[in-house]
Amino acid sequence: MRLAELSERSGVPTATIKYYLRERLLPPGERITATKAEYGEEHLRRLRLVRSLIQVGRMPVATAREVLAAADDESLGQNARMGAAVWALPHGPEPEEDDPHAARAREQVDTVLRRMDWSHGQELGDNAPAYRTLVAAIASLDRLGYPHETEHLLVHARLAGELAVADLDLVETYGTPEQIEAVVALTVLYEPVLLSLRRLAQTEESSRRFKK
Amino acid sequence: MRLAELSERSGVPTATIKYYLRERLLPPGERITATKAEYGEEHLRRLRLVRSLIQVGRMPVATAREVLAAADDESLGQNARMGAAVWALPHGPEPEEDDPHAARAREQVDTVLRRMDWSHGQELGDNAPAYRTLVAAIASLDRLGYPHETEHLLVHARLAGELAVADLDLVETYGTPEQIEAVVALTVLYEPVLLSLRRLAQTEESSRRFKK
Repeated sequence: MRLAELSERSGVPTATIKYYLRERLLPPGERITATKAEYGEEHLRRLRLVRSLIQVGRMPVATAREVLAAADDESLGQNARMGAAVWALPHGPEPEEDDPHAARAREQVDTVLRRMDWSHGQELGDNAPAYRTLVAAIASLDRLGYPHETEHLLVHARLAGELAVADLDLVETYGTPEQIEAVVALTVLYEPVLLSLRRLAQTEESSRRFKK
Repeated sequence: MRLAELSERSGVPTATIKYYLRERLLPPGERITATKAEYGEEHLRRLRLVRSLIQVGRMPVATAREVLAAADDESLGQNARMGAAVWALPHGPEPEEDDPHAARAREQVDTVLRRMDWSHGQELGDNAPAYRTLVAAIASLDRLGYPHETEHLLVHARLAGELAVADLDLVETYGTPEQIEAVVALTVLYEPVLLSLRRLAQTEESSRRFKK
């Protein structure tokens, strides 16, 4: 398809598509004349992912480019590419060094991973951005004197595990080459779904418990 | 306690506490001389909440002040104050007007709320910020051509419901006057916990499914 059709089918203005091409967020089309290029389904798919990252995930172009580079890294296997692309997504704050709260939080995270039998997370530890964000989040709870019992964290972990199963079932409805892109897009697009459902559920539950 | 002790027990520098007092994020202490004031446990608790909002939740001072005003609004009952304070927290993007994707998303959200029997959410609808964020998030999935079957959303909703029960059990370990502050702080502080656990669980599950 030509640029005009790519724009129409994706709903992305042609000027924006040209910008993404210049920024190498989108691979070039196949040149057919000096001024015309042909685009395929893979461009449409990539364009959707770029929109997910930049418009919904509000990522800077440089971050989006890193995420895509990881997803496209052919030196890695399928699972490593998924992992690398998700790691390149923006994540929460980092734990502070030499912070006694972070040191305690780290031990607690290791206990949670062990109890969940999440061996991959145990091996990766500090190398995984999500591990570090979790340590930082628990360190904040500890520093501010809010509860963070292991049993309560395990409730969150168990539910996160069930979600991951449902989310990856969804990813597996995609063909192999598209699965990496789908994991990245769904990770970004479902975070606000989950957080808003949690707040709605809380409203519901608290109106049940505290009548007025 | 005096300012110095409040600073020591909270870990917040005295200059920062003075700034919070000036910005009315913290109620004034009880004046004992022209230059000295006495602070109580409620100041310590409020200071922890302010830190949760500003340091961890990265909220602007004006937003934090709105959240606290709602939590303190004595014209409202306990449950209404909780709701109002959580509503004043920053939330995700708003759905666009006259957007066919948002119109479809709204119907789907209503179906999810009905199927979950979340009557409070159904009544509130567009008045609840979390409802609008959810509509916007599903509209994005729809616009970008990613899956958002009602059954999949219901998996998220059911798990969010289980989390809300566990979270409110935690809130109920607090005495009545502190519960409102606890709901607000725990909502903010547990969001990064949940999101990072979701990413860790995904890594785990995908390494199980896609060996390399």
